[in-house]
Amino acid sequence: MKTVFILDLIHEELQRVEQKMRQASRVEYEHLATVLDYLLQSGGKRLRPALVLLSAKFHPADPEKVISLAASVEMLHTATLVHDDMIDNSLVRRGNPTLNATWSSGATVLAGDFLFALAASLAAETENVRVMSLFAQSLMTICSGELRQVFSSRWRLPTREEYYQRIYSKTASLFAASTEAGAVLSGAPEPEVQALREYGRTLGMAFQIVDDVLDFVGDERELGKPVGSDLRQGIATLPVLYFHKMHPTDDGLIKILNDSKEEEIRAIVAAIRESGAVESALDEARTFAQRSRESLQVLPHNEYRQAMLDLADYVVERRW
Amino acid sequence: MKTVFILDLIHEELQRVEQKMRQASRVEYEHLATVLDYLLQSGGKRLRPALVLLSAKFHPADPEKVISLAASVEMLHTATLVHDDMIDNSLVRRGNPTLNATWSSGATVLAGDFLFALAASLAAETENVRVMSLFAQSLMTICSGELRQVFSSRWRLPTREEYYQRIYSKTASLFAASTEAGAVLSGAPEPEVQALREYGRTLGMAFQIVDDVLDFVGDERELGKPVGSDLRQGIATLPVLYFHKMHPTDDGLIKILNDSKEEEIRAIVAAIRESGAVESALDEARTFAQRSRESLQVLPHNEYRQAMLDLADYVVERRW
Repeated sequence: MKTVFILDLIHEELQRVEQKMRQASRVEYEHLATVLDYLLQSGGKRLRPALVLLSAKFHPADPEKVISLAASVEMLHTATLVHDDMIDNSLVRRGNPTLNATWSSGATVLAGDFLFALAASLAAETENVRVMSLFAQSLMTICSGELRQVFSSRWRLPTREEYYQRIYSKTASLFAASTEAGAVLSGAPEPEVQALREYGRTLGMAFQIVDDVLDFVGDERELGKPVGSDLRQGIATLPVLYFHKMHPTDDGLIKILNDSKEEEIRAIVAAIRESGAVESALDEARTFAQRSRESLQVLPHNEYRQAMLDLADYVVERRW
Repeated sequence: MKTVFILDLIHEELQRVEQKMRQASRVEYEHLATVLDYLLQSGGKRLRPALVLLSAKFHPADPEKVISLAASVEMLHTATLVHDDMIDNSLVRRGNPTLNATWSSGATVLAGDFLFALAASLAAETENVRVMSLFAQSLMTICSGELRQVFSSRWRLPTREEYYQRIYSKTASLFAASTEAGAVLSGAPEPEVQALREYGRTLGMAFQIVDDVLDFVGDERELGKPVGSDLRQGIATLPVLYFHKMHPTDDGLIKILNDSKEEEIRAIVAAIRESGAVESALDEARTFAQRSRESLQVLPHNEYRQAMLDLADYVVERRW
């Protein structure tokens, strides 16, 4: 099951979101226009815009504003990726060279800033104060999470609590903002807004855990990056925490987080793949996906709710 | 005449803006809280908040929202400075070490991003869609101007047009947004909004020209940086353009913009100081200041209008 089937229902609107993003990034300054085009063409699953579109389907909403919001959320996401890749010095994303692989760090920072501004401008097109406020809050949550990561000590493993906090900041917060804002724009009553927010949050948690699992078991070509890339950056994710629980006296992990040699990384990735750690992590993702499905119970049964249920399945079944 | 006298009128409100900024930056994560505190304490003239406060004085406005807007504008300004200093690799600002002098570039980028988010959140507190849209537009203008700068060729001098475009993006755009947004929040009729916007724009142009002049003739201690710092970065400002007009065959300038040796920089700074270039540039600043005063003619005569007229004098008479 691929997102493309689930999202058939909103296929046309997703195309309008693409158009909207292209339109917004048609700036006078050619250097910048080219790079925005490149960034927006590099794909991505467009899950966040899909979440906005679906969440706005349960009450009559102004379609133009929903499209602007969906474009805004994806633009914000792209902006954070541009800065992340620069900070991590990543040279490849989704199989394509990152911006910082060809541009100076200064230009990369500014391009990211410009994307933030574009995203804010698209959010302002909704003319909805709560939506704009959500936008700002999400950006704050994402940045402070990243800062924690930058300053975190690599000499100890994070607690489970810290891991959850990190993936909430990194991923689930924007998923939650997408579904909440979509619901708000449609004028949904508050219990529905909260249910959709909770759907987004738990779906985001499941999504990120699966992402972290795929970093161990995924196909390098499909991922567009080598396996074990988190470990290479000194980041311990859920499979690592499970593996450590199984081998509590093994301090090789801590060593790898601080000074990674390619052979050692490959060895530990293989060990984690073969242990039950991956399966245990996936179980947690499935639990989150189940919670996301349950939170939709307050919504009327219709094709949009069904698509959201299917999306929760997809998120844990996906292979890239 | 110092800003402090002119701004006596709004002294208390400016203090509330400081409080508001401190309050907004009291974040849970200690590392970040410390650094935000440091950035906000490092001073600055708080001209942009003053412009917001004064521009909102001609009609009854919600004081809380005006304070939030003033804090938002200063926060946005601070965010752009944090990224600028990182991009230019500047180690000192206003006599204090910059954030990138002690933090990694990654952490600096994220701290700047967080400040953008805080600024957006404060702008959202105005609950005014036009104000929030202005906020986003200003950030876009600032970033695209910076990008032009980063990619500009150093092998030729900019045209007068390009120079103006640059200082508009860098400074006048946010001044204009400050006065426009202040007026909008007070519910001023559109002709007044436009007059205040034009006041902010022309004041900003005058302010930046004077800044560029002070980079040649200012006191290094008061500036908190060495003279000629623009030239060192390969940036040709208005005094340089005038100097070049006086000595059109001298290609030493272009050489310096591309490969600056300390002695050559000192020599050219001295030559520009002694030429009429500085005075000619100041004349242009005075013309902009005069235009800013004239744009206030549609406003009622009162102490706030007077303060704005005085501010236009201050901007061209200041020594730091």
